[in-house]
Amino acid sequence: MTDLTGVEALFFDVFGTVVDWRSSVARELAAFGDEHGLEADWTAFADDWRGLYQPSMENVRRGTRPWANLDTLHRESLITLLARYDIQGLTEHQIDHLNRAWHRLDPWPDSVAGLTRLRTRYILATLSNGNIALLVNMAKRAGLPWDAVIGAEAVRAYKPLPESYLGNAALLGLEPAQCMLVAAHNDGLAAARALGFHTAFVARPTEYGPGQTTDRAAEADWDVVADSMIGVAEALGC
Amino acid sequence: MTDLTGVEALFFDVFGTVVDWRSSVARELAAFGDEHGLEADWTAFADDWRGLYQPSMENVRRGTRPWANLDTLHRESLITLLARYDIQGLTEHQIDHLNRAWHRLDPWPDSVAGLTRLRTRYILATLSNGNIALLVNMAKRAGLPWDAVIGAEAVRAYKPLPESYLGNAALLGLEPAQCMLVAAHNDGLAAARALGFHTAFVARPTEYGPGQTTDRAAEADWDVVADSMIGVAEALGC
Repeated sequence: MTDLTGVEALFFDVFGTVVDWRSSVARELAAFGDEHGLEADWTAFADDWRGLYQPSMENVRRGTRPWANLDTLHRESLITLLARYDIQGLTEHQIDHLNRAWHRLDPWPDSVAGLTRLRTRYILATLSNGNIALLVNMAKRAGLPWDAVIGAEAVRAYKPLPESYLGNAALLGLEPAQCMLVAAHNDGLAAARALGFHTAFVARPTEYGPGQTTDRAAEADWDVVADSMIGVAEALGC
Repeated sequence: MTDLTGVEALFFDVFGTVVDWRSSVARELAAFGDEHGLEADWTAFADDWRGLYQPSMENVRRGTRPWANLDTLHRESLITLLARYDIQGLTEHQIDHLNRAWHRLDPWPDSVAGLTRLRTRYILATLSNGNIALLVNMAKRAGLPWDAVIGAEAVRAYKPLPESYLGNAALLGLEPAQCMLVAAHNDGLAAARALGFHTAFVARPTEYGPGQTTDRAAEADWDVVADSMIGVAEALGC
């Protein structure tokens, strides 16, 4: 294994790596539907919502749109999907409530225990495209023990732009070699490694549901490869 | 008392309100002096260092200097003072170590207990001119239970610029009326109140030592007035 003795901070991808966005968003949508007499395939709606995630950030990444945080982008995507699913007549307040489903995501069952062990040795920071309010509300509800809730919004650069990784390391006063990205996504780890970060892969083979075809396993020799956050803690001796 | 039922987040001034910078910096300087055979009035040095704090931010506030974080400003002030105290020959590494004395400040004896109680009901966030690395390292060492470590650096605006208060409320997705500033400084509370924040004064009558003449007591009808962080928790029913 690479020498990891210089690592001081672990940066975490959040959606999919720490929390199960798919089940959580589908649950929130279904509860709202039950309450208001609406019917739809809410898991498909959650998948479609997530499907608009990468495209929604693209104009911001390219600089053809000024900075907009993820709550704003999620809300635009939600309005598109409400029309597509022919769900009409919601109030602004109801739309805001639905949009904040992303603030109420449940952690994977091993996340809190693994993070708690890792925190005894490392600074734990978010490196998410989620905005700070979203991440703070999520952490408060789910009990995620972050030392620093930063990420794309803190540097106004969405992953995988290099400034996102480098700017967040700099916010902690660290060089990339003192940082490790923990993620369930091979492409994010590749982007971070190219900039000098250490890397830990956590397999989340059902992030996208039972038929998931991508990121089912590590696709490179990441410094740590584990199948849970507890596995990451064990690999790092915590 | 004002109706505080809409308050969701407590923002904290940190230097002086949560931590005792004067004793801590003097202790760090004295320890360094002992180790390297240097003699000086280290408490006076700490006071002089803090004395350069407000002036050091002024060109950044005015926009005549690009953003520079507090570690950078503290280091410039330190170099000025090392010359004034005729302390020569320190390495860059030693200067960095001394500069990070501000990362190793001790909390007042009531801070952790009070914050821990407040956290059961509110989002706790820093609203400090300290940079994020400084605040994260301080919190990790002192056990300060923040939900969000943000502040001047997160919005690139030093207090008391309005953007500092408003930008930090916005980072949590909140209106000023949903926020309360907790501080030991009447001027900071006045700036926050003018923007719609609720206010809590915590008396720290020895922040500047036994001869302190300012901020010994509340100078306006702040929503909460207390003499410890536990007193703030009690006033807010936590």
